[in-house]
Amino acid sequence: MKKLINTPETVLAESLDGFAAAHADLVVLGAERKFVRRAVLKPGKVALLSGGGSGHEPLHAGFVGHGMLDAACPGQVFTSPTPDQMMAAAEAVDGGAGVLFIVKNYEGDVMNFDMAREMETGDRLIETVLVDDDVAVEASTYSTGRRGVAGTLVVEKIVGAAAERGDNLAACRELGERVNKATRSMGVALTSCTVPAAGKPTFNLAEDEIELGVGIHGEPGRRRAKMTDADTLAQDMVTAILDDLQTSGQDTAEVLLLVNGFGGTPLMELYVMYHAARARLAARNVRVIRSLVGSYVTSLDMAGCSLTVTGLDGEMAALWDAPVQTPALRWGI
Amino acid sequence: MKKLINTPETVLAESLDGFAAAHADLVVLGAERKFVRRAVLKPGKVALLSGGGSGHEPLHAGFVGHGMLDAACPGQVFTSPTPDQMMAAAEAVDGGAGVLFIVKNYEGDVMNFDMAREMETGDRLIETVLVDDDVAVEASTYSTGRRGVAGTLVVEKIVGAAAERGDNLAACRELGERVNKATRSMGVALTSCTVPAAGKPTFNLAEDEIELGVGIHGEPGRRRAKMTDADTLAQDMVTAILDDLQTSGQDTAEVLLLVNGFGGTPLMELYVMYHAARARLAARNVRVIRSLVGSYVTSLDMAGCSLTVTGLDGEMAALWDAPVQTPALRWGI
Repeated sequence: MKKLINTPETVLAESLDGFAAAHADLVVLGAERKFVRRAVLKPGKVALLSGGGSGHEPLHAGFVGHGMLDAACPGQVFTSPTPDQMMAAAEAVDGGAGVLFIVKNYEGDVMNFDMAREMETGDRLIETVLVDDDVAVEASTYSTGRRGVAGTLVVEKIVGAAAERGDNLAACRELGERVNKATRSMGVALTSCTVPAAGKPTFNLAEDEIELGVGIHGEPGRRRAKMTDADTLAQDMVTAILDDLQTSGQDTAEVLLLVNGFGGTPLMELYVMYHAARARLAARNVRVIRSLVGSYVTSLDMAGCSLTVTGLDGEMAALWDAPVQTPALRWGI
Repeated sequence: MKKLINTPETVLAESLDGFAAAHADLVVLGAERKFVRRAVLKPGKVALLSGGGSGHEPLHAGFVGHGMLDAACPGQVFTSPTPDQMMAAAEAVDGGAGVLFIVKNYEGDVMNFDMAREMETGDRLIETVLVDDDVAVEASTYSTGRRGVAGTLVVEKIVGAAAERGDNLAACRELGERVNKATRSMGVALTSCTVPAAGKPTFNLAEDEIELGVGIHGEPGRRRAKMTDADTLAQDMVTAILDDLQTSGQDTAEVLLLVNGFGGTPLMELYVMYHAARARLAARNVRVIRSLVGSYVTSLDMAGCSLTVTGLDGEMAALWDAPVQTPALRWGI
């Protein structure tokens, strides 16, 4: 294992300290590194709080800032943060309008965010949006039901803009659920990731093999397959995504297309995949009206990518376009 | 070789088509894919034009837009664009105030940009800024003198802001030379990159080896060394950079620190390196007043990173902060 780290034990702390120092204009690291919060909070606004295991950077801490999250709780690598972290973060960012937890559907995350809600003894209002956008499998190593993957970014961006304009807690939760219902993702791995503390690849792929439908912790997907070209991969993933969206009655006339790298994949390849996916969407009369291409919801150093499609209505498109100012996503400000 | 491509022959065209489609609000692809230019040009402004071999994305096309480049010419992977491309781009973006070529110091690029200037028979004013920020070696496989690497981004951003505020061609060139003189970089590779058409790694590193001072095409650096920790790597690179800057009389009291991933390195590791480099700079009384962390000047899928330090004066810091709106860098708008 070759990684730019000092020790597996210190990688999270050093990475967070570096992150907070590099983005001191936007974020502050909480005591004991329990959470990252906005440098400037907005009283009276619904506070958006997310978190999860580390190793998916820039998700979630990279999305803390105006127009997106108020705080994010980083767990150890691929390990849920603790209820204690979530309570400390909620305390730090609740501006009186309540707190919305945005939770990826993994058993550890769901359990710990639920526990944090239950432990809340004051009169703090807390609601939860569960994100489960991955069409690859119906249950997996760490999840009952579908996994939450790159679609989480879309939920955080759109609901973040709604909270910023003053939507109340119930409206934010409902919008989050609407975005999640309109969103599907699927990934493919060309290589495994390597967890620093493990020191060896999570799984093994031969030189001509891929894992289709892989999870963002290296969990198995739909099938191990032979490596193939970008067009075929895009065809497989777009078909799975669109079939699922359309079967469940979602409007796919106009969509957001997110091509997300897993951490070890260069941008050139992501644009090839974007080109391929867009052509396959067009062939099914789906018009891409918003796009995002980059490594946003990663799996450490895994090579591969995921495609995410969100059916957009006018309100969702406008909220996507709204100003955002975070370490990893920034426009309009 | 596993890559998200269709064929090595079509990877550049498909990637550029995807890029232009994803960022149609900001850029336009020229005829025959000779260049990428801003969607909206600004008459009377000095036009900034760069380019080079592909495989370093988002450099350069990702930096086309308000506050940075007016056009970029993409060559084949690790191959200079042609004078024909540069002339077509200059023709497309010259708004009457002249064109500034920003050229990384590689023999092919220097020769072709020079040839484009010489072939210009009209009265178009063209000046050139040569970037040679890499302290690792004094000459290498593709360069006479030092190589131009991630510092190119810093030159493009700062001079881009100056052109936007109305500086004339001579002033833009002088500023570009000033920024280049104040900028030094050094990189380290943990793995080789793989050029699609070659199908195999450019060089080989053992499981416990690194290439210290590697170039962005996989050219050899200062030495092959044993893998070590982030603090030691940062110490070596910061020392080489600062010694060189200070020996040449540059002011390093306040600096920009850019930690740049080479394409196959996750963000978490880049923040660990940022943390380590910042501590080593502080130990030498160098204050980091601006920061950028991400994969901006890459070498396809190479794992590793470079550090870039630019000594900033007040004007350069203000120009760095000025609004920018490109596919890969965006703030203030």
